[in-house]
Amino acid sequence: MNILVINSGSSSIKYQLFDMSDERTLAEGVVEKIGEQTGALTHEAYGSGEKAEIVEERAFRDHHEGLVRIGELLGGPETAALGGAADIAAVGHRVVHGGETFQDPTIIDDRVMEVIRENIPLAPLHNPPNLLGIEVAMAIFPGATQVAVFDTAFHQTLPMAAFLYALPFELYEKHRVRRYGFHGTSHAYVCERASAYLKRPLDGLRLITLHLGNGASMAAVKNGKCIDTTMGMTPLGGLVMGTRSGDVDPALPFFLADHLNMSLGDIDRLLNRESGLKGICGSNDMRDVIDMAEAGNERAAIALDVYIYRIRKFIGAYAAALEGLDALIFTAGVGENAPYIRRRCCEGLAHLGIAPDRARNAGNKPGISEISAGDSRVKVLVVPTDEELRIAQETERVIRK
Amino acid sequence: MNILVINSGSSSIKYQLFDMSDERTLAEGVVEKIGEQTGALTHEAYGSGEKAEIVEERAFRDHHEGLVRIGELLGGPETAALGGAADIAAVGHRVVHGGETFQDPTIIDDRVMEVIRENIPLAPLHNPPNLLGIEVAMAIFPGATQVAVFDTAFHQTLPMAAFLYALPFELYEKHRVRRYGFHGTSHAYVCERASAYLKRPLDGLRLITLHLGNGASMAAVKNGKCIDTTMGMTPLGGLVMGTRSGDVDPALPFFLADHLNMSLGDIDRLLNRESGLKGICGSNDMRDVIDMAEAGNERAAIALDVYIYRIRKFIGAYAAALEGLDALIFTAGVGENAPYIRRRCCEGLAHLGIAPDRARNAGNKPGISEISAGDSRVKVLVVPTDEELRIAQETERVIRK
Repeated sequence: MNILVINSGSSSIKYQLFDMSDERTLAEGVVEKIGEQTGALTHEAYGSGEKAEIVEERAFRDHHEGLVRIGELLGGPETAALGGAADIAAVGHRVVHGGETFQDPTIIDDRVMEVIRENIPLAPLHNPPNLLGIEVAMAIFPGATQVAVFDTAFHQTLPMAAFLYALPFELYEKHRVRRYGFHGTSHAYVCERASAYLKRPLDGLRLITLHLGNGASMAAVKNGKCIDTTMGMTPLGGLVMGTRSGDVDPALPFFLADHLNMSLGDIDRLLNRESGLKGICGSNDMRDVIDMAEAGNERAAIALDVYIYRIRKFIGAYAAALEGLDALIFTAGVGENAPYIRRRCCEGLAHLGIAPDRARNAGNKPGISEISAGDSRVKVLVVPTDEELRIAQETERVIRK
Repeated sequence: MNILVINSGSSSIKYQLFDMSDERTLAEGVVEKIGEQTGALTHEAYGSGEKAEIVEERAFRDHHEGLVRIGELLGGPETAALGGAADIAAVGHRVVHGGETFQDPTIIDDRVMEVIRENIPLAPLHNPPNLLGIEVAMAIFPGATQVAVFDTAFHQTLPMAAFLYALPFELYEKHRVRRYGFHGTSHAYVCERASAYLKRPLDGLRLITLHLGNGASMAAVKNGKCIDTTMGMTPLGGLVMGTRSGDVDPALPFFLADHLNMSLGDIDRLLNRESGLKGICGSNDMRDVIDMAEAGNERAAIALDVYIYRIRKFIGAYAAALEGLDALIFTAGVGENAPYIRRRCCEGLAHLGIAPDRARNAGNKPGISEISAGDSRVKVLVVPTDEELRIAQETERVIRK
């Protein structure tokens, strides 16, 4: 069974085609700068075992035009394993916000579309392009089952103590203001991989997952169920990110409006695009920030201190939520590739039973690696994430039901 | 030496007069509803060993009129130990926001007044009435040294990793946007009391203090120096409070403005006055909330769950910041008087070495009490706070220099 995974953003469509018999990638690519004067498509196909790459630099008027071209390429000779797009049994769509309705991947029908639409106020930047991707895919792959896989679904097991803000209760009841959490696909995936690696069932495990990419979040997972996560109603809260502030004083907007004459739109841009690592030291690329700090740049060193200290506090907080800890799991761009960050995040946590091994941590092996000392009470693992594969797996699971 | 402590708020002046030879209270009271049509003054004097109480229900036009009357009463026959107001060697003023300038109590001169004025943007509700109280006290007690004791001072030892938000750095450099923390007088006082009780010097102790009143904050204190605290640039952040939200998603204001047409002023009121325990269950009085929950009120139970869960997470976070923990200290109205809250805050923290003793916790003894089990690695203490006495002590210390 071939499954196509689509991640449709405001100006881009990422896609990946899997042969689920062996979870092999048949093709993958991205259409970028949709709607701009010069766009780009990059397509890689592995049909015959060798990689064939196609790069097209041209305008893509809209998502429909982009996805039509993707469909042509997936049916073309470059994807030799495919007779054509008709071989795609299902399309798994990444949908950012499923609100409180969806705890699981769901076959898309009119009602599901309607609920995704209803959740636009909670994810104004993400749900509209997600919907557009679904609509276009329905038209282009009419024979495929369309499945929505929600970023929020894994976090729907949060208890009320963890998801409710201390706000007037009707904001939750009537307007669904609450913590949702994101990156759920990734947190869920690395938990299952860690469980398999440790040869211990999820039931009985207390895990903290650190998804550290340009966006970043952590989750506390008990018996396979997420009980807390750092992002909130939106993906702005929690950890320090590339350009996002994470948590700030809730009165900050009043100060910025009163004393710097900023509008709410200005403040939104400030917190989402001009803050985080970039705000403190000018770069939102962790590799640059680490290089800058090593070269003596004081601001970069401060940015790292703030970034790491907040993670360490959340590790402590989530160990309290979990009443102890069995394993700590690093994943995503920074988590998988920055030994320096992992080392410092684990420092000073001996009271929790965390004993990292410096040499193990320094070696960046492919696949899952264990970077804690042999006698560490808490296992510290690096588990590469694969959100596309997880979406494909979830899509297969739901259509086999 | 007699020292008068003044806490001048927007519509009230609280005061307490100490004989510092034995730290005895000679008189104390409050003028309320200043500027309203019907105000009230309550004055208690202990000059002759017996309590004399005066209650006056009448209008107090302004802070000056209120403080003039306080001066008269302090010089009157009810305060027998005093020959008159001239016996007051110093007046210690609670000042909420000292910004980054003041790490210690300070004798007030023109420059100090100017700095308190400069910090008004950071504490628009508090610093102006604090300044007014100082100006009036200077006129009424011209022979007394005026000393400012800052709520923020104790937290000025926070390292940058703990005080800096992940915002554009110039917001800190130019506009002093950072975490300040409040209730510093109380956190400092209970740390010293705990150190004396434990017969261990502050140097070497890792403490977490929980000031749980209608306002609430926690602090992490290492070797007597505060290294982190839950309140931020303003007293709105951190823990769930009586009517304040504590931490929320930083994007909440954008949602409230876009979808509920709220102005920033509306949102400010919502977060400061209509949130917290009151927002969830309708009452901001912890005694009522506990009673309601025990009577089966579901919302009150939820409010307690949210309130307590956040505290437990901060205990975990601060144990991580401190790299372990020696003692946990409860203080202020709720912390001193609500065994139910203390018990639940300590649950599930055995991994940190916290073993509360149910019977010890249930008995509300006066003075300092130890509520952890005999073999608890972490001592859990209830330490009554006394911010007025601490302000008097600090005032005496600075004028003796």
